[in-house]
Amino acid sequence: MRDFSQDHRWLSINTATVRRQRGAEQPLADIIEACARHGITAISPWRDQVAAAGLPAVSKLVRGHGLQLSGYCRGGMFPAVDAAGRLAARDDNRRAVDEACELNAACLVLVVGGLPGALGGRAAHKDIALSRSQVHDGIAELLDYARASRMPLAIEPLHPMYAADRACINTMEQALDVCDALDPGLSGALGVAVDVYHVWWDPKLQAQIERAGTGPQGRRVSRLLAFHVCDWLTPTADLLNDRGMMGDGVIDIPRIRGWVEANGFAGYSEVEIFSTGNWWQRGTDEVLQTCIERHRSAV
Amino acid sequence: MRDFSQDHRWLSINTATVRRQRGAEQPLADIIEACARHGITAISPWRDQVAAAGLPAVSKLVRGHGLQLSGYCRGGMFPAVDAAGRLAARDDNRRAVDEACELNAACLVLVVGGLPGALGGRAAHKDIALSRSQVHDGIAELLDYARASRMPLAIEPLHPMYAADRACINTMEQALDVCDALDPGLSGALGVAVDVYHVWWDPKLQAQIERAGTGPQGRRVSRLLAFHVCDWLTPTADLLNDRGMMGDGVIDIPRIRGWVEANGFAGYSEVEIFSTGNWWQRGTDEVLQTCIERHRSAV
Repeated sequence: MRDFSQDHRWLSINTATVRRQRGAEQPLADIIEACARHGITAISPWRDQVAAAGLPAVSKLVRGHGLQLSGYCRGGMFPAVDAAGRLAARDDNRRAVDEACELNAACLVLVVGGLPGALGGRAAHKDIALSRSQVHDGIAELLDYARASRMPLAIEPLHPMYAADRACINTMEQALDVCDALDPGLSGALGVAVDVYHVWWDPKLQAQIERAGTGPQGRRVSRLLAFHVCDWLTPTADLLNDRGMMGDGVIDIPRIRGWVEANGFAGYSEVEIFSTGNWWQRGTDEVLQTCIERHRSAV
Repeated sequence: MRDFSQDHRWLSINTATVRRQRGAEQPLADIIEACARHGITAISPWRDQVAAAGLPAVSKLVRGHGLQLSGYCRGGMFPAVDAAGRLAARDDNRRAVDEACELNAACLVLVVGGLPGALGGRAAHKDIALSRSQVHDGIAELLDYARASRMPLAIEPLHPMYAADRACINTMEQALDVCDALDPGLSGALGVAVDVYHVWWDPKLQAQIERAGTGPQGRRVSRLLAFHVCDWLTPTADLLNDRGMMGDGVIDIPRIRGWVEANGFAGYSEVEIFSTGNWWQRGTDEVLQTCIERHRSAV
């Protein structure tokens, strides 16, 4: 397991972590400049932030600072009520792949979607098995496109509390079943994003991380494409926007990092915190400084 | 699958559903009288409500109305920071078994506990595997006592969002693994409580319900001891107290009921709704009437 205590070489900042300071949307360019100022070498931006800043401008900034992208947030949201909706999702996901390529991201993270309409409070149906089937088909189709672009797709299993509205892939086991079905050859084109917030509770987590790192006949080909950290607070005040800073909650993050690294992951540890009540109420520099400290002491 | 549309013969009310109307704690005796008035034939009371009313008085009321108990809420909370804490949990759980026997409950529901202290906001440690080990040992010990009293224990897998503070058994698979380890002979003394709110999202739900209903060599001995219903709202405003009335959310309850009944469950459908913002703001009679209607139309 790598020693993180001496520097923050392997720290990445998901730009949502500092996007809404004191209620004001922060321009992505400012976030990138702040990261560079703190000696942070990798980020993971969101598509809407990139769109607002303009892809060419972001690309230039990223290259200018020599920043890596630990991932690109995000593709997915495959299920839809009709064929037109699924086609729109397909096209939008292809654009996401193109953008990820332009930014030289390590992978495109997939938040796969749940019941169509549920995110807006009006689920079109209750058939989660149908959504899962559409997710399977959607990833299969996108994978062809992504392979041609050499952009790896990272399925992110989301916490089961998001099964209805954000992602109906909710465990590592389920995500890896999709990987095995769609990429049996372990080409590297399809894998998973392990976010400790979503999977820490899973009694099969260690076993599934080991599975992700082990190919057929014991061949070591890791499907572990991204590693996201934050913490689970007790109590948690909000289902979406009350994530904790690493070390402030109950997740044994170093233990999980040990598992992913023992199974082939050697990339960035990406901090992704949505926090209306706490971290979004502070200045960007303070948040980034805290991320650096906790990266060294609690990850 | 039984036809629920014509009557509410198989409706049970978990008494938490109408315990805090308009912020005022409702006496259990009043709740029982209200259930009887609505022709409801089964309830599942909470231990603290029984303690407040007095066990002999509750027992007399229950028998007087000919009420059944679909379960007794609840034993569990096994993990503790030291031996004294575990001993206290053991003794308290034995008392819960005794009370369940006095009330002739179908089973004692176990909410097994998580990280010690987390419910109060101060987890003593982050080792969920340790808590799971203590849960295993705690159930094993209680099972001896419960067997002697002929009181079945129903492990309730809780939604993963409660893994830290309420229950570190979070899937049917995990609960059934414990059942298999501690009661390999399928004696009927140990099983599971299936609450749709906690398990609806699980991609392995149907398979695990089938497993619960199938013994070694295909012998049909169901471990399905209780079936709880409410609904998952989108959005969900609070992790604990924003459960929906059946039919108001995204859970395909009839499908899940079909699975449990196809695998041997023939007991009550128990309504358990914690709802600060909605159902606890209404009168007891209105809530019970709605439960009856939805039991007939949405379960």
